[in-house]
Amino acid sequence: MKPIPARIAAFHANGADRYGVVTDAGIIDMTPEYGSRFATLQEVVEAGALEEVLKSSEGRAPTYREEDVTYLIPIARPEKLICIGVNFPDRNAEYKDGQSQPTKPSMFIRFPRSFTGHDGNLVRPPESDQLDYEGEVTIVIGKSGRRIAKEDAYDHIAALTLCNEGTIRDWVRHAKFNVTQGKNWDSTGSIGPWLVPFRNASQLDDIELTTRVNGEVRQQDRTSNMMFDFRFIVNYVSTFCTLVPGDVIVCGTPTGAGARFDPPIWLKPGDVVEVEAEGIGMLRNGVEDE
Amino acid sequence: MKPIPARIAAFHANGADRYGVVTDAGIIDMTPEYGSRFATLQEVVEAGALEEVLKSSEGRAPTYREEDVTYLIPIARPEKLICIGVNFPDRNAEYKDGQSQPTKPSMFIRFPRSFTGHDGNLVRPPESDQLDYEGEVTIVIGKSGRRIAKEDAYDHIAALTLCNEGTIRDWVRHAKFNVTQGKNWDSTGSIGPWLVPFRNASQLDDIELTTRVNGEVRQQDRTSNMMFDFRFIVNYVSTFCTLVPGDVIVCGTPTGAGARFDPPIWLKPGDVVEVEAEGIGMLRNGVEDE
Repeated sequence: MKPIPARIAAFHANGADRYGVVTDAGIIDMTPEYGSRFATLQEVVEAGALEEVLKSSEGRAPTYREEDVTYLIPIARPEKLICIGVNFPDRNAEYKDGQSQPTKPSMFIRFPRSFTGHDGNLVRPPESDQLDYEGEVTIVIGKSGRRIAKEDAYDHIAALTLCNEGTIRDWVRHAKFNVTQGKNWDSTGSIGPWLVPFRNASQLDDIELTTRVNGEVRQQDRTSNMMFDFRFIVNYVSTFCTLVPGDVIVCGTPTGAGARFDPPIWLKPGDVVEVEAEGIGMLRNGVEDE
Repeated sequence: MKPIPARIAAFHANGADRYGVVTDAGIIDMTPEYGSRFATLQEVVEAGALEEVLKSSEGRAPTYREEDVTYLIPIARPEKLICIGVNFPDRNAEYKDGQSQPTKPSMFIRFPRSFTGHDGNLVRPPESDQLDYEGEVTIVIGKSGRRIAKEDAYDHIAALTLCNEGTIRDWVRHAKFNVTQGKNWDSTGSIGPWLVPFRNASQLDDIELTTRVNGEVRQQDRTSNMMFDFRFIVNYVSTFCTLVPGDVIVCGTPTGAGARFDPPIWLKPGDVVEVEAEGIGMLRNGVEDE
């Protein structure tokens, strides 16, 4: 496994929203020192101050035990939260019909409200039993740009995190086009557990991404197999819109979601879903009925 | 024509972003009185204070002439900005193939950055010459709710405005599903000119909506012909996500966009597009090349 270079999380503890550096011994709350300059972790990213805050935490003792905090999604109100659709080859489909790859990615947008933090429960609404998981590597923009060249793309990424891009499958098909409504149920997905500062290409180019449900591996692939890689995504998205610090891009899920099984296997209360990627960490969530 | 009950706009003047009440004699700046409580018009809406601010403006003299301000989009950073797809009958299609109506609306999401305010220019990017217009009635949520009953839907609407849901047509078809990228080019659409407080059903139920290009009527229909009416939309959207004050829903365009002509007629620099609706006003924008 690749080491995780550093971890900074948004969390709620002792009656307030905070952010701090996560260590094996606990969480070093950085809001006492930085809260007046940056109210939130999002503001830290927007100010380009991730490395400053991380460095400032060195040598300090933890303030909170991990079990005493509630993790929040790292960027609470990004200007943009963009998801890339089908982005890993489906080996079955490849072998059966030799379908050609699309030349452009499918994209949709989610509202932050559709996500919960690490260790929170995904919420299955009474309107559907088709709650499904999708494990995805997620990038956070650190530097503004429009029409960013592929070779410059990595300079615009500040941090990495993980997403369980949880979906209400039957509502994805409510309309002929656009998956909007199946992708935006309140608290059906998760982002976290933390941000890992992005310092070099090896953190993204060929990392393993795994999703487990109740310990069973359901999705597993490597980012080197992505049809549209991170550089392509940053270049393509920034062609039509200006990317700004704090923007979040969820970069696509390997084959093996519950919908791919025959019959499909939907998430149910009590299930535990883990999304793990080398060098980023592990995002874990339970499931509950609304 | 229905009268416009009142108009409150976000604008830039004298070096600052402001909001104020628009009258025939000019704009009454309300930020000197309310700016410390509500930094933006969005905050006025979020606080449920639209009527208070409007009332407070009564009898005051205008602060700015309309020609001395730059209109901004009324809600700068809504938590949600949702667009309803095809929502007016296409008479040609109806008569030619008798296609049945879909039972659920198509929906997509736009970023505020894709819009400019009233009197700003829509921007045609060098990547495409297929900039198209779509005139739409737009509602702004004033009261939070989830699973809002249709009969209560109007209680959750605070204000009305207009949208030119400008689109880069060829990019709408980049992906098999989802129109995201064709709908999110920076400054390709507009919202405004102002918010009109929503006080009774007659302001929405059967108003005429018209889009003109260089004075020529291109789209014209009545909201009573919408396939999914405003009550349905509020109910349906709030089924999957909690609507909150300041959320913006762009409710669909009549037939007659430039793409519907044979050959299509795209917008070009120098064109002037006007979107007008009874009782709301008229949103006008020029077109320029990036």
